Amino acid sequence: MSLNGEATGDPVLVVGSVALDSVRTPFGEVAGVLGGAASYASVAASFFAPARMVAVVGMDFPEAHVARLADRGVDLAGLQHSSGRTFRWSGYYEYDMNQAHTISTEPNVFETFRPELPQEYRNSPCVFLANIDPALQLYVLDQVRRPRLVACDTMNYWIESAREKVLEVLARVDVALMNDAEVRQLTGEVNLIAAARRVLDYGPGAVIVKKGEHGAVMLSRESYFAAPGYPLEEVRDPTGAGDTFAGGLIGYLARCEQSDDAGMRRAIICGSVMASFTVEDFSLNRLLRLSAEEIAERYHEISRITHFEGM
Amino acid sequence: MSLNGEATGDPVLVVGSVALDSVRTPFGEVAGVLGGAASYASVAASFFAPARMVAVVGMDFPEAHVARLADRGVDLAGLQHSSGRTFRWSGYYEYDMNQAHTISTEPNVFETFRPELPQEYRNSPCVFLANIDPALQLYVLDQVRRPRLVACDTMNYWIESAREKVLEVLARVDVALMNDAEVRQLTGEVNLIAAARRVLDYGPGAVIVKKGEHGAVMLSRESYFAAPGYPLEEVRDPTGAGDTFAGGLIGYLARCEQSDDAGMRRAIICGSVMASFTVEDFSLNRLLRLSAEEIAERYHEISRITHFEGM
Repeated sequence: MSLNGEATGDPVLVVGSVALDSVRTPFGEVAGVLGGAASYASVAASFFAPARMVAVVGMDFPEAHVARLADRGVDLAGLQHSSGRTFRWSGYYEYDMNQAHTISTEPNVFETFRPELPQEYRNSPCVFLANIDPALQLYVLDQVRRPRLVACDTMNYWIESAREKVLEVLARVDVALMNDAEVRQLTGEVNLIAAARRVLDYGPGAVIVKKGEHGAVMLSRESYFAAPGYPLEEVRDPTGAGDTFAGGLIGYLARCEQSDDAGMRRAIICGSVMASFTVEDFSLNRLLRLSAEEIAERYHEISRITHFEGM
Repeated sequence: MSLNGEATGDPVLVVGSVALDSVRTPFGEVAGVLGGAASYASVAASFFAPARMVAVVGMDFPEAHVARLADRGVDLAGLQHSSGRTFRWSGYYEYDMNQAHTISTEPNVFETFRPELPQEYRNSPCVFLANIDPALQLYVLDQVRRPRLVACDTMNYWIESAREKVLEVLARVDVALMNDAEVRQLTGEVNLIAAARRVLDYGPGAVIVKKGEHGAVMLSRESYFAAPGYPLEEVRDPTGAGDTFAGGLIGYLARCEQSDDAGMRRAIICGSVMASFTVEDFSLNRLLRLSAEEIAERYHEISRITHFEGM
């Protein structure tokens, strides 16, 4: 596949949060920047396939942020504008960039968000349910018509407060994306491989465990795949890495119209590549100035850094 | 290369500890079993090349343990028998097998250990300096004559208490093996890639960072390589994994008589394979009943689990 800058293939529906983030890291500080899982995921997906977003923002949401998403070709027919303030997250990272410290989370308009799908979105062949209340994820699944591929994310908060709903979602998706701590929390298994296998028992055809700097692994009933972290000497802001990974993954799967084991492996590498760009700068800054050539080059580089010959 | 069970190629000299270990994990408990870095490393190396060991044991060291090492073909001309008790380590692991908890460490005969190399060991082309006092590692280097390849390990204790000596060793070796915490501790860099690059500045041609369940990465001036952890659903006892990794690595390099980038990559996979067997049972039990076919099969499996096609 060559990325010629044009998004072809099946449309990808992304449902999740759009946020105004304030973030401090050892490399700088930003306030009120474009963030949220749906922003990262839909922009990442847009490099591979047409992306559609269902989310909500408040009246304070800058037009410039809307323009950024639209300029990337993200279809915003599903972006609701509600009275009130946009969802806001504020946090910081110390030198250990693997650990986000939350200062405050203001759900604001997200508190009453109902993801209503525009008619034309209901046939979306590929769906990514980003990390939101699993009851809303189920509400989305009730509206889409026989999607070819559904992937979901979740987080510790829902695993703890809405475990049964999380399990209901897992029973209805093809691909479950989680980080290592979440997989362990959900299953009570410390061994990551055993934990991932347990998640398969809940229903999804594949479980992808995101391990930050250590890469990602995929477990399905027939296969196991390990992808390395892309070696970056400077991570400026890890916010959105996991959502970007998911967006790159599902965008690739939509574009190549193939979701067998070989396709999933390539999609995981695309997700890793996209995430490696996101963390190079704050907000979506790096993604928004990314070229198809850079994606292809980094994909090839991951192939080089994992290559070895027979014994 | 085919492993026909016969160790050919250059001899490997291993210098380090032989210990009597008492270990408890969620899967069982053993007392006074064969352990120590030199035991794990020389046995792992012996599957690939002739292994020679320089270490010390006390009068309490069971003949059966000596016989086990000898049966694997490990040359024990350098194993000193001192009056006193053998080095003993006692510890346990909770469900998180990545974290060893030490109950007690008794250096015993190790306290006065001087690694004197038998004449015939001084021409050893490949040398592995396991984790011992860096002053002793230097003492070994003063005795060997132009080895083709020297690898070393170290640990947090020496980095803290004998930092200058650790740096002296690093300036004289080809391959530095460390775990992720040690690389960060030694360099003060949190970013693992930046930390590994800093270690290169100290002198070695390659740095290999062991990351436990997350595999290992190698950084040299020209290359970067990422090896996954072999996916095990049950780890019974992680003791000796890092030393086994090192032994498999240097054993392979000795056998293939090639230590360029491609050879190093294959050697890292061999190290990972050997370590993945060690943790399947207590002490060296799994290693001592391992076959060449099992090694080859698992090597091939790591190739399968990392494989992906072009984008």
